[in-house]
Amino acid sequence: MKPLILVTNDDGVYAPGLAALQKALAGFGDVYVAAPDRERSAVSHALTLHRPLKAEELRERVFSINGTPTDCVALAVHKILPRKPDLVASGINRGANLGDDVSYSGTVSAAMEGTILGIPSFAISLAGERPFLYDSAVPFAVEVAGYILDTQLPYDTLLNVNVPNVPKEALKGVRITKQGKRIYDNAIQDIYSPWGEKHYWIGGGQTYWEHGEDVDIQSVMEGYVSVTPVHMDMTNYSALDVLRKTWKTTKD
Amino acid sequence: MKPLILVTNDDGVYAPGLAALQKALAGFGDVYVAAPDRERSAVSHALTLHRPLKAEELRERVFSINGTPTDCVALAVHKILPRKPDLVASGINRGANLGDDVSYSGTVSAAMEGTILGIPSFAISLAGERPFLYDSAVPFAVEVAGYILDTQLPYDTLLNVNVPNVPKEALKGVRITKQGKRIYDNAIQDIYSPWGEKHYWIGGGQTYWEHGEDVDIQSVMEGYVSVTPVHMDMTNYSALDVLRKTWKTTKD
Repeated sequence: MKPLILVTNDDGVYAPGLAALQKALAGFGDVYVAAPDRERSAVSHALTLHRPLKAEELRERVFSINGTPTDCVALAVHKILPRKPDLVASGINRGANLGDDVSYSGTVSAAMEGTILGIPSFAISLAGERPFLYDSAVPFAVEVAGYILDTQLPYDTLLNVNVPNVPKEALKGVRITKQGKRIYDNAIQDIYSPWGEKHYWIGGGQTYWEHGEDVDIQSVMEGYVSVTPVHMDMTNYSALDVLRKTWKTTKD
Repeated sequence: MKPLILVTNDDGVYAPGLAALQKALAGFGDVYVAAPDRERSAVSHALTLHRPLKAEELRERVFSINGTPTDCVALAVHKILPRKPDLVASGINRGANLGDDVSYSGTVSAAMEGTILGIPSFAISLAGERPFLYDSAVPFAVEVAGYILDTQLPYDTLLNVNVPNVPKEALKGVRITKQGKRIYDNAIQDIYSPWGEKHYWIGGGQTYWEHGEDVDIQSVMEGYVSVTPVHMDMTNYSALDVLRKTWKTTKD
């Protein structure tokens, strides 16, 4: 049986990166698309529980859903696809998903939802600014999908892929990396309404990043495609013992 | 200098659990509240980037913000509080945040944002159904806050606390636990609009949980307060070597 592949994103169903990913993976099997009806960046792993969702079939195997990327994966897997998919691919996102940003990312969260549902999943993003060179990311989307379909991913783990937004020829290859640490500067702007009311707009400011050759952000800055294995189990295991030793509990 | 404590939640600024947490922590220092203007459950670590945010001072040291729990922490830390807080406390949530649900949770995400900003943080939730017995959680909010203010938390790690929603006397004490695994049944309902259009509503269905004495969900089911150290670094370190050995890259 040909592999069944679900493609989604957080930039919305009309985003060029989604079409590029759909096309890139067509050679592997039957590709279905289920994506948000509009941009849903930075929505993280949000799930819509307070209202019903609608899935509109825009054309064969392409569905627009009025929800978050996580909603799209859940709905597609449970209600739209003919069977459980063999792969969930999310992207190609316009903008990096590196370091702690992973936890805000709608793109990565769609892959998280796939992973929670027991489906091998990856997220792929172009690290840089407009114009986005989707053609640079396509060969690596193919490489990652091929790896995942050939090789079993580690348990409960997705791949977070970031491709430097540079011409294809400038890319130096793949590095397997760890999630870096981001340090924010004061990244909120004061803004005033037409009526003089003070507001705040999150964004801007400087960010600083952890260095290290095996860190996602540095790899991307050096021109490598970064592939990070992201674990859904967020337990800090090394902290368990410390806490058990130092906790003075009121009972037990 | 007295500790400065930021209290937030995802049930909104008028939620009784927020008031209970604010009161519980008053003995430790100066408590400020910055919480969403309305319920923002399951919004995960969503950050509002597409519009400005407004902070309204409802009364002294209590701010209502038209954004997500993550927005509230970012705005409070950068723009509202007189200095960087010593502790971020999120809750008391009405409903559990256990297993993979951690990644959907607005309550836990507020503590994640605190952690990313370098502030010791915890989330506290009542595991169960209405009516919620906030009084049962209060002594443990105090215990956890005391621990964190006395003892340095492990790097980049927050505490996710779940208190069984039972009378205080029935609680058996604290267990330090790991994040469990959830297996979902088909948890999406078909719903029809008044015009006969098919919709889907996420929710319901059966869920199954990983067993084990040190697993968060089982601890709560046995009447223990579960305290899980949650790490912001989601790298699956044991997968790094496997991937490096098995990846056949196109370049390098």
